Amino acid sequence: MVLAIAESERVRGITSPNPPVGCVILDESGKAVGFGGTQQAGGPHAEVMALKEAGVKAQGGTAVVTLEPCSHYGRTPPCTEALVEAGIKHVIHAVTDPNPRAAGGAKRLEDAGISVESGLLEHEVSNGPLRAWLHFAKTGRPHVTWKYAASLDGRIAAQDGTSQWISSETSRKEVHDMRAKLDAIIVGTGTVKKDDPALTARDADGMPLPRQPLPVVVGMSDLPDGAKLQHTALHLRTHDPDVVLAELASRGVVDVLLEGGPTVAGAFLRAGRIDRVLAYIAPALIGNGLAAVLDAGVSTITDAVRLTVEDVTMSGPDLRISAVPQI
Amino acid sequence: MVLAIAESERVRGITSPNPPVGCVILDESGKAVGFGGTQQAGGPHAEVMALKEAGVKAQGGTAVVTLEPCSHYGRTPPCTEALVEAGIKHVIHAVTDPNPRAAGGAKRLEDAGISVESGLLEHEVSNGPLRAWLHFAKTGRPHVTWKYAASLDGRIAAQDGTSQWISSETSRKEVHDMRAKLDAIIVGTGTVKKDDPALTARDADGMPLPRQPLPVVVGMSDLPDGAKLQHTALHLRTHDPDVVLAELASRGVVDVLLEGGPTVAGAFLRAGRIDRVLAYIAPALIGNGLAAVLDAGVSTITDAVRLTVEDVTMSGPDLRISAVPQI
Repeated sequence: MVLAIAESERVRGITSPNPPVGCVILDESGKAVGFGGTQQAGGPHAEVMALKEAGVKAQGGTAVVTLEPCSHYGRTPPCTEALVEAGIKHVIHAVTDPNPRAAGGAKRLEDAGISVESGLLEHEVSNGPLRAWLHFAKTGRPHVTWKYAASLDGRIAAQDGTSQWISSETSRKEVHDMRAKLDAIIVGTGTVKKDDPALTARDADGMPLPRQPLPVVVGMSDLPDGAKLQHTALHLRTHDPDVVLAELASRGVVDVLLEGGPTVAGAFLRAGRIDRVLAYIAPALIGNGLAAVLDAGVSTITDAVRLTVEDVTMSGPDLRISAVPQI
Repeated sequence: MVLAIAESERVRGITSPNPPVGCVILDESGKAVGFGGTQQAGGPHAEVMALKEAGVKAQGGTAVVTLEPCSHYGRTPPCTEALVEAGIKHVIHAVTDPNPRAAGGAKRLEDAGISVESGLLEHEVSNGPLRAWLHFAKTGRPHVTWKYAASLDGRIAAQDGTSQWISSETSRKEVHDMRAKLDAIIVGTGTVKKDDPALTARDADGMPLPRQPLPVVVGMSDLPDGAKLQHTALHLRTHDPDVVLAELASRGVVDVLLEGGPTVAGAFLRAGRIDRVLAYIAPALIGNGLAAVLDAGVSTITDAVRLTVEDVTMSGPDLRISAVPQI
């Protein structure tokens, strides 16, 4: 399953609105003979890719897959049929498909005499490569990660507006790698005016990575002439996070990175539309300056938006904190 | 040495201006036969306490001590003489005494035919129980730890001024335990007006712990009538951190906890008089509200006060981050 998760991670960013599934085929003796990840929407699913590599060695073997194989005809034939035809005898999947259209895969396999086991490394998969897609399948809304880089005292810029760079090179590289695995990045018009970002995923030499997310700007103002995003970004003239997310969902966006400033972050927080907070905290103190969030809809301490810390790691000299709002 | 460090920790908070030293005496066979920590100023040092417990078993044995034994006559006779008289053959100490008055202990011991080894767990001791005292011995100034509790976005209170409680019960208990091991706690008059703190070290039931630090209030305003600190605190009518620290040094204060609000913290930061930052970061977002620091003397990003993270641990649901300013 660890290898299947690796396949799953490898295709993150290209499969939406389909899930980035990973699959490993083991032959009768338990040897890994085929690896696959879901291809771009309309392309073959992970199981089909892995079966293709395994060929006749799949006969009597086991399919280890991050998501319950689908049993419906969409743009591709059901994976369950491919597994049956290849002579697979056992299927082990991590996560059960919550999508009523595609579900029933396990039953279809069992009916065909295949033994099915579910739940292996379920937590790792559902909080890892399939997190955004599972959120989308359950709520109909893209999964929103709010990422920001601030000082220990919560400032994202100094008094004169300078912010380059609060966080370390290591942290900034991490963010570029993350961007390449996402469907869209949102900023506000304020950030466009202040920082003129390109929102591209670049490598250490500044060259664009092969996969690029959709850049999205929200807000009523026009983008300044000559702004890097002027001709590349989807500009949504609204302040309502739900309008933004509905528009993105209709475009097949499942996994969103919110890199907005304090105003946009506040709007998403007030609407309860932040699903994960990813804070890069630089060990520095700035004092008066621009705060990470302005109006979060909190007037008294008991209304604070409480989070649960999922993970804390060092990113170079910075702290990288992943947290989710308590429901 | 681990046992000697434990003895050292046990007496932290009572020894200032003397160092909280710990000592373990091993008999000839290497068995621990005496334990001791330095007593209140004027009382016996750690070595004497430990030798007393060991009695004749110290003959031919080893003294393991966190600090190089002193060789001068102060309010007590030199520890080197006590070790020689007890027939100790080996001395192992962690940290060499930087104090010219007391130093030379190792030489005196070697002259008496005792083998001396230094540097064992030096880092643990010099960043642990002897940290504040070593700072004081080198600079003449008390060691200042700025402790604050804030949300992930750096707020110490909500818009309406409420702040109870941002951090968890676990974190607040940790702070009470810490207070009992310190010499003084500083707040500003602003915090007295806003929170009316008692600045006492209390146990889980709210009962005062046996050791209490000196409460210190800095600022020009009078304390409000009826404030808990009105009759217990040392009120220093100044905004100059160096004036505050000189006054505290003259009173034998070595280890200080700064619990001031954003104004006092800013003054100490601007003066370069914060030696360690201890941030309890609650996983919560507040947005508009009171920031942890106001004027830190930083107007542009390159002037940010850069820190190095020493340690990150969880304190209940909160993050506890210890960091030191880069010099």
